[in-house]
Amino acid sequence: MNKVNIKEKLDLVNDYWVPRIVGELNNQQVRIVKIKGEFVLHKHDNEDELFLVIKGVLKMEYEDKIIDLTEGEFIIIPRGVKHRPIADEEVHLLLFEPASTVNTGDVKNELTLESPERI
Amino acid sequence: MNKVNIKEKLDLVNDYWVPRIVGELNNQQVRIVKIKGEFVLHKHDNEDELFLVIKGVLKMEYEDKIIDLTEGEFIIIPRGVKHRPIADEEVHLLLFEPASTVNTGDVKNELTLESPERI
Repeated sequence: MNKVNIKEKLDLVNDYWVPRIVGELNNQQVRIVKIKGEFVLHKHDNEDELFLVIKGVLKMEYEDKIIDLTEGEFIIIPRGVKHRPIADEEVHLLLFEPASTVNTGDVKNELTLESPERI
Repeated sequence: MNKVNIKEKLDLVNDYWVPRIVGELNNQQVRIVKIKGEFVLHKHDNEDELFLVIKGVLKMEYEDKIIDLTEGEFIIIPRGVKHRPIADEEVHLLLFEPASTVNTGDVKNELTLESPERI
């Protein structure tokens, strides 16, 4: 039952697109990640996913639109919906999603991380 | 798939201790609440609960200690653990918890809210 300071945890992260676990509850995980550039378009067949922007501007691209999110804004991606996170500049995110969630969803590539580490 | 601005949602809240739903995913809910004063000591038998401080200083009291949390810090209360949120001054919180979570847990009193509204 220790508290977690989100920005202190983000200070420990020195790479992009590699989520880390910072909390777990009800078979869900709180993850943090720094991103920059364009991710792969993907979907999660069995998991809804929440993205909360801690710093920067996140562009969430869907098949038919792009939504910009800034600090203090979140968006929920329902299961089955294709999405691609884009960050023109570095963006810091908090994710809330089932522990089973694989970052690249139905796509497997060099960014795929099946089991994030806990920090 | 609309985004949610947490502070804009909090601006709609004019009372204390009444959680509102601002997002739902995986049978979990994102709730916001403004608090001031002392809540009732309670526990949730079947739900872990996450408190994220958006504004102010939250004192989370357990049976054997108190943990202070400030903006950008969160804490997870495991199911079964008695806790009492305390706010000497107004505090704004984001909660993440199962949709089944009743705010006062195993205690029923005038603050009990079985079904929060969505805003």
